[in-house]
Amino acid sequence: MKADSVDPARVQDVLDGRWGHVRRAARTQLAGDHFVAVPGETLEQARERITRLLRELPTDLGAAAMFPDEHGGAFEPGAAVTAAEMLAQLDLSLMVKAGVQWGLFGGAVAALGTRHHHETYLKEIISADLLGCFAMTETGHGSDVHRLRTVCEYDPATGTFDLHTPHEAARKDYIGNAARDGRMAVVFAQLVTQGEGRGVHAFLVPLRDDDGAALPGVTIGDDGHKAGLLGVDNGRLSFDHVAVPREMLLDRYGQVAPDGTYTSPIDNDARRFFTMLGTLVRGRVTVGGAASAATRQALTIAVRYGETRRQFTAPGQDREVVLNDYLAHQRKLLIALARTYAFTFAQEELVTTLQEVQTADGPVDEHRQRELESRAAALKAAQTWHATRTIQTCREACGGAGYLAENRLPGLKADTDVFTTFEGDNTVLLQLVAKGLLTGYRDNFESLDGWGRGTFVAEQVREMVLERTAARSLIRRLVDAAPGGSDAGAFTDRGWQLKMLEDREKHVLEGVIRRLRKGAATKKDRPFDIFNDVQDHVLEAASAHIDRVVLEAFVAGIERATDPAARELLARVCDLFALSTIEAGKGWFLEHERLTPGRSKLLTSAVNGLLKELRPHAATLVDAFGIPDAWLACAILREEPGRQEEMARDDQRRDSRRSTNDE
Amino acid sequence: MKADSVDPARVQDVLDGRWGHVRRAARTQLAGDHFVAVPGETLEQARERITRLLRELPTDLGAAAMFPDEHGGAFEPGAAVTAAEMLAQLDLSLMVKAGVQWGLFGGAVAALGTRHHHETYLKEIISADLLGCFAMTETGHGSDVHRLRTVCEYDPATGTFDLHTPHEAARKDYIGNAARDGRMAVVFAQLVTQGEGRGVHAFLVPLRDDDGAALPGVTIGDDGHKAGLLGVDNGRLSFDHVAVPREMLLDRYGQVAPDGTYTSPIDNDARRFFTMLGTLVRGRVTVGGAASAATRQALTIAVRYGETRRQFTAPGQDREVVLNDYLAHQRKLLIALARTYAFTFAQEELVTTLQEVQTADGPVDEHRQRELESRAAALKAAQTWHATRTIQTCREACGGAGYLAENRLPGLKADTDVFTTFEGDNTVLLQLVAKGLLTGYRDNFESLDGWGRGTFVAEQVREMVLERTAARSLIRRLVDAAPGGSDAGAFTDRGWQLKMLEDREKHVLEGVIRRLRKGAATKKDRPFDIFNDVQDHVLEAASAHIDRVVLEAFVAGIERATDPAARELLARVCDLFALSTIEAGKGWFLEHERLTPGRSKLLTSAVNGLLKELRPHAATLVDAFGIPDAWLACAILREEPGRQEEMARDDQRRDSRRSTNDE
Repeated sequence: MKADSVDPARVQDVLDGRWGHVRRAARTQLAGDHFVAVPGETLEQARERITRLLRELPTDLGAAAMFPDEHGGAFEPGAAVTAAEMLAQLDLSLMVKAGVQWGLFGGAVAALGTRHHHETYLKEIISADLLGCFAMTETGHGSDVHRLRTVCEYDPATGTFDLHTPHEAARKDYIGNAARDGRMAVVFAQLVTQGEGRGVHAFLVPLRDDDGAALPGVTIGDDGHKAGLLGVDNGRLSFDHVAVPREMLLDRYGQVAPDGTYTSPIDNDARRFFTMLGTLVRGRVTVGGAASAATRQALTIAVRYGETRRQFTAPGQDREVVLNDYLAHQRKLLIALARTYAFTFAQEELVTTLQEVQTADGPVDEHRQRELESRAAALKAAQTWHATRTIQTCREACGGAGYLAENRLPGLKADTDVFTTFEGDNTVLLQLVAKGLLTGYRDNFESLDGWGRGTFVAEQVREMVLERTAARSLIRRLVDAAPGGSDAGAFTDRGWQLKMLEDREKHVLEGVIRRLRKGAATKKDRPFDIFNDVQDHVLEAASAHIDRVVLEAFVAGIERATDPAARELLARVCDLFALSTIEAGKGWFLEHERLTPGRSKLLTSAVNGLLKELRPHAATLVDAFGIPDAWLACAILREEPGRQEEMARDDQRRDSRRSTNDE
Repeated sequence: MKADSVDPARVQDVLDGRWGHVRRAARTQLAGDHFVAVPGETLEQARERITRLLRELPTDLGAAAMFPDEHGGAFEPGAAVTAAEMLAQLDLSLMVKAGVQWGLFGGAVAALGTRHHHETYLKEIISADLLGCFAMTETGHGSDVHRLRTVCEYDPATGTFDLHTPHEAARKDYIGNAARDGRMAVVFAQLVTQGEGRGVHAFLVPLRDDDGAALPGVTIGDDGHKAGLLGVDNGRLSFDHVAVPREMLLDRYGQVAPDGTYTSPIDNDARRFFTMLGTLVRGRVTVGGAASAATRQALTIAVRYGETRRQFTAPGQDREVVLNDYLAHQRKLLIALARTYAFTFAQEELVTTLQEVQTADGPVDEHRQRELESRAAALKAAQTWHATRTIQTCREACGGAGYLAENRLPGLKADTDVFTTFEGDNTVLLQLVAKGLLTGYRDNFESLDGWGRGTFVAEQVREMVLERTAARSLIRRLVDAAPGGSDAGAFTDRGWQLKMLEDREKHVLEGVIRRLRKGAATKKDRPFDIFNDVQDHVLEAASAHIDRVVLEAFVAGIERATDPAARELLARVCDLFALSTIEAGKGWFLEHERLTPGRSKLLTSAVNGLLKELRPHAATLVDAFGIPDAWLACAILREEPGRQEEMARDDQRRDSRRSTNDE
């Protein structure tokens, strides 16, 4: 492939994908730098600006796609998530603030409330006239929300609930919109009625009066300065016996009659809670997508800088070498770039599934819903960790310039950092993923409490049948066509690559099952250890699973490319993703004799060969992300090319002087 | 080992080491939180506070140890570096500001100037009445300072130099003390006299008048907001034909006579420049030590939090499980902790070498100096990357709380981030390390320009003789006593561990040599590729070298422990460091048949076994870092234990109610 043989616009068509119209609308409607992050703001400046911009967002890029038409929306979850991804390219605070307002707060009112709540509040929520909070996490409980300590007890005498924070560990914490803007909150609390606990339910609770003062019984704290996301006003909420009217229970999945009688369409408490938590899935999908959007920006900056920035002269050359010509730089940036491409395809596949599941007619397909939740958890964890690592790499690849706020990277890094632990801690999410794989997404609500009942899981493990969501038949065909044996197959044989990752996933999962079963038999007196002793193995299974499904999504995505040159380039990027993934895991493949030592060494040469082949296309690959220059908001991209020209002229002048002297 | 069998104070004695008196003095003299970082400051607040605190530092913890007695100092480089490490535990901005003022600016005047400069300026520099800059880096050249573009040309007619910035890429950039405080700067520029370039030299140049206004011809810019280190006023300097008096050349290594005649005790330009750069070594040693100091703080916070914070209940238990009991958490924190211990010993060994080399009488031992520079580069790169990774891990291990500025981790992360690229970009430093290994630290100035002359290096490579600095004979004995063969030796056999890392280093280096020689023969028409094609292999060699010397330092350090329980604990931590390092590199060891697949799998079990064994000592291991609570400045450490008690009481009350109801 020649460097100029591929039109980045053709690659961009493939990446823009199914919701390309949303991406194009965002690039047009949000053109310029009006909505772009501003470096070096104070906390107050950032909060003020983001609240203002939230209200200036065009509705179709903010709220509309999240809500049903009857409230002024046009419910299309795929479009909503894609719009959020575009906002993430402008300002991650703006994207998170929008996510809190419409995704979490508005989403909870829509999904957990009923007609009365919808009619009373959704219109003002969509217009951002009513700003609100999603008050689930407590200081003492983030991951294990099942064990929240806030209590809301019904009193039939007054027809109200008594909402109470029993101690500091039970206060709501890290709540977006709480410190400054929120007028109401969806508060999650343990419902008690007729003396009986009914598990966690959601209540719509006013927080502030029209002047912004906290209402009686409500104590509002400020989480203050954070590592990033300064534009989001995270805070703390405590309730001192606040009376909440009965109709403020968001009662779609659980109702309390005036006399205190509790009814629910879902009998099992844990199952009901899981159903309510299902509303969180869109948040996880959004966060994963936003992390990758930020990663693409960081890579665009670092790759473009590496195309002009020069350092150290090569022998026999006058001008210094551009950074992207160094193998070490290619190993840093191009491998991360290939993985970022892979995630872009995997994310689109996930968003498509989200759209299909959430807009399907008829009763919820629980198996499908669980699969969606598992895939969302998997890709949220994978993309956010990849973002943290890659943005750091890009920062370093830009040297001291990468540390200056004017070059955007510090903001991208600081803002995305929290993504690895919010909307679900990544390590906890990977365990959920593994659990889904082990139990075949069975309706296993009994072991809600983490992995406590390892015995249960061990007994329930299913036969190993790998799920495929992307282009099932294509991938089966490729795998079946791949030659067998540990040493067989060219490295670029797609079937061989797929088979290596599939085989690893199966084998690791089988190992976990074997050890859990053995543990269940031998560690009956130490039930915690049954699971805990294999926790590293469990996480490895989830990671192996993610690598496999992401590669499959990439392979399926290439099929969408109609332009032959774009398709050829994407195929090489896919090779780089697959081979660098196998290279990174060569310890496992050697240990399990899926690679011979000799072939393992050749693999490293193959990766280096691909880097050489892709090097001329580095700029094309980031151009294809289609990020407007104004959104990159990066000083060095504007200035560095001019400086390099100055230095080149400088050298020429010196050389001409020298030769004049020589004469 | 029982959990309470080790007194952390005995472990601390070993860690405090040779400059324990400096550490103890700092803990006493800087007690309380007066000097501790303040979260959430604006740029201006941070700069104002740090400048003020710089002047309040007790002299013996700031400047004194860096300068000779005749100027009010007590030259002891080891004490100076240790004091800087202690400052890093208070506030990394304060440490960097002190490093700029006394280490770089004052250090350059002391090392590159002569009596006249010393007598005129050092006193005011030490007292911080004269604040100054070290203006080496330019916008266009950071790593390759040999190619700086600022020019300083001597004019015998006026007896002055003409200092000039020819274009924007030549402006000085990222210069500490420039944006706000610096009155003078040591400016590095290409000296031209009698029409001839003499290479880079240093000039002492006034920047501002007494009112702080820039002097004529000097343009001062502000680098503005950065990812971290807000208290350091980094800026930009440009010179428009500024006249610099002849005596302001710092002329220890190069003199210009009134008529413009140039003389130098060192003939070779490159060699002279290298000698001048030798003054930078203390900065690199300091940055590596500061990175580890910050790492120890982050680990202290995360491990202590993990000792009280609970999440998810174990089967059959009422209270939730503390985070440190999870294997996944131990894999995150304890392995990082073991490596941090290892670096603490390696750093002390390096500081000792620094002290010995810089205080030795008689002529400079060039081989020793090169070895010191190489080791400083190696440990700077290793410790700063370890800091970036580990502080991030600690942030995530504290969940949302880790993202709040009040819990210190965001500041530690943001401030240390730049360490991976300043005082030498880590990737460039690792190449220097490898080059030293390949050439036996030979006086190889010809290939100053990066690795351009790959052929030269390939021809010069020496026989492989590994250098040892720590307890040579002990380590030789242990290695010689280790059983041979790939499968032999218990995992905890120290000799086997040492041999594995030593063997890998030798083998990787030999591989690089072989490939460079082959490249030199076959790629004569592509000289750049000779080196570039093996760049990943070169970096691998440097990493393998670092792992080996760090393990040797740890092994030697354990010998200093006199308390048997402390010694036993350190030995287990050393096992964890060695085995987790081998585990992380198992791909290589399997590929090169130093581990069989079966033994490789057992290795993972051995690491998990060590984690179980060390788990009860986690708190002891961070207590032994001896960081005063006030210096940790972390809200969750004060609050979390109380919250957990509240929740436990809460549970008890509920349970007692429940049993009352049951009766």
